[in-house]
Amino acid sequence: MPCVRVHGFAMSIDGYVAGPDQDLDHPLGVNGPRLHEWVWSTQYGRKMMGEAGGETGIDNEVIAQRDQRVGATIMGRNMYGPIRGPWQDSDAWTGWWGDNPPFHHPVFALTHFPHPSIEMKGGTSFHFVETGIEAALDRAFAAADGQDVVVGGGAATVRQYLSARLVDDLHLVVVPILLGNGERLFENPGVDFNDYACVDHIGSSTVTHVHLSKVTAT
Amino acid sequence: MPCVRVHGFAMSIDGYVAGPDQDLDHPLGVNGPRLHEWVWSTQYGRKMMGEAGGETGIDNEVIAQRDQRVGATIMGRNMYGPIRGPWQDSDAWTGWWGDNPPFHHPVFALTHFPHPSIEMKGGTSFHFVETGIEAALDRAFAAADGQDVVVGGGAATVRQYLSARLVDDLHLVVVPILLGNGERLFENPGVDFNDYACVDHIGSSTVTHVHLSKVTAT
Repeated sequence: MPCVRVHGFAMSIDGYVAGPDQDLDHPLGVNGPRLHEWVWSTQYGRKMMGEAGGETGIDNEVIAQRDQRVGATIMGRNMYGPIRGPWQDSDAWTGWWGDNPPFHHPVFALTHFPHPSIEMKGGTSFHFVETGIEAALDRAFAAADGQDVVVGGGAATVRQYLSARLVDDLHLVVVPILLGNGERLFENPGVDFNDYACVDHIGSSTVTHVHLSKVTAT
Repeated sequence: MPCVRVHGFAMSIDGYVAGPDQDLDHPLGVNGPRLHEWVWSTQYGRKMMGEAGGETGIDNEVIAQRDQRVGATIMGRNMYGPIRGPWQDSDAWTGWWGDNPPFHHPVFALTHFPHPSIEMKGGTSFHFVETGIEAALDRAFAAADGQDVVVGGGAATVRQYLSARLVDDLHLVVVPILLGNGERLFENPGVDFNDYACVDHIGSSTVTHVHLSKVTAT
């Protein structure tokens, strides 16, 4: 059965998944890129940058699974771009990723303001959903053609899907750094996560991969 | 040089180092014991419970380092006992650990209310410091006779020593569970931890040991 996944979501030891003060110059927030340094030494990460080589160990194996059996991605408005409030000039911004984004499938961005769809190179298309997270999920599954849907981020978007119990598989990457500030994935104490269990847990020399899965009632 | 250490401090994936609603029946908070289950399968953990056997892998090696070169322990009032406010009956409570506590050296408990020292079996003694965390550290170092001082917990106490930059070595154990609620070690966004760096990072089959060390200016 196709499922909803969060994959390779990097978190610091003090719980931050993005740095503070996100803007055009700091899409991941100040210090946020430190969360992703481990990716750039992998073969997968190098390939994303159009480079050859890179490590092929645990980190590479796990991060490469992100692309397997994925037919659509959902992301929050802030992951799509730095614009806040109503769209100013819909044509001017087409995401952070250049004209051939690394998704190669339909991407659904959550927004409160209507925006026409955008066709990019390489099979990526951006669609804008104003009717909430469940509607976005319905559209993503319809577009995914029997494959999984990845909730790509950012923190607030993943948190919403987690809180609504719509995430089946949560793969976190715990990076052994202290960011000191930023955006937390687990922001609200008191939200019960007892229905998620660790099904896999493997450390590399740089990070720890923790795979949590929603326990379905039997 | 003797240093100030936090050792084997267990934290859930969502950042909790104790469960909520700590009281006499739940000294680690509700669900808090889940943070420490990994200890009980180790040889060190079994020995603490007066039992033989147990695993001798990474977890055991790392947790056993807690006792090496330690001459004194500092703990918060809540780690010492469930009593809040003025001491009601000083003689009635002598800690959670029975008449032969597992410290076997002087222990300094932070409190706002005077309390006479207590001599326990096995070399442990409890002393009560009303004059703040630095005074407690001075007394602990004086008692440690050239050895290290461990800040044992709980969360608020470790947080205070960390914020004051009095901790030299911070060894955290990241446990792959989601507690959903409780007490966080990293509670206050904006506290800068850039002067701590990861010096060691090793995963076992059950947890990940992250050793952070204060970077001293050169």
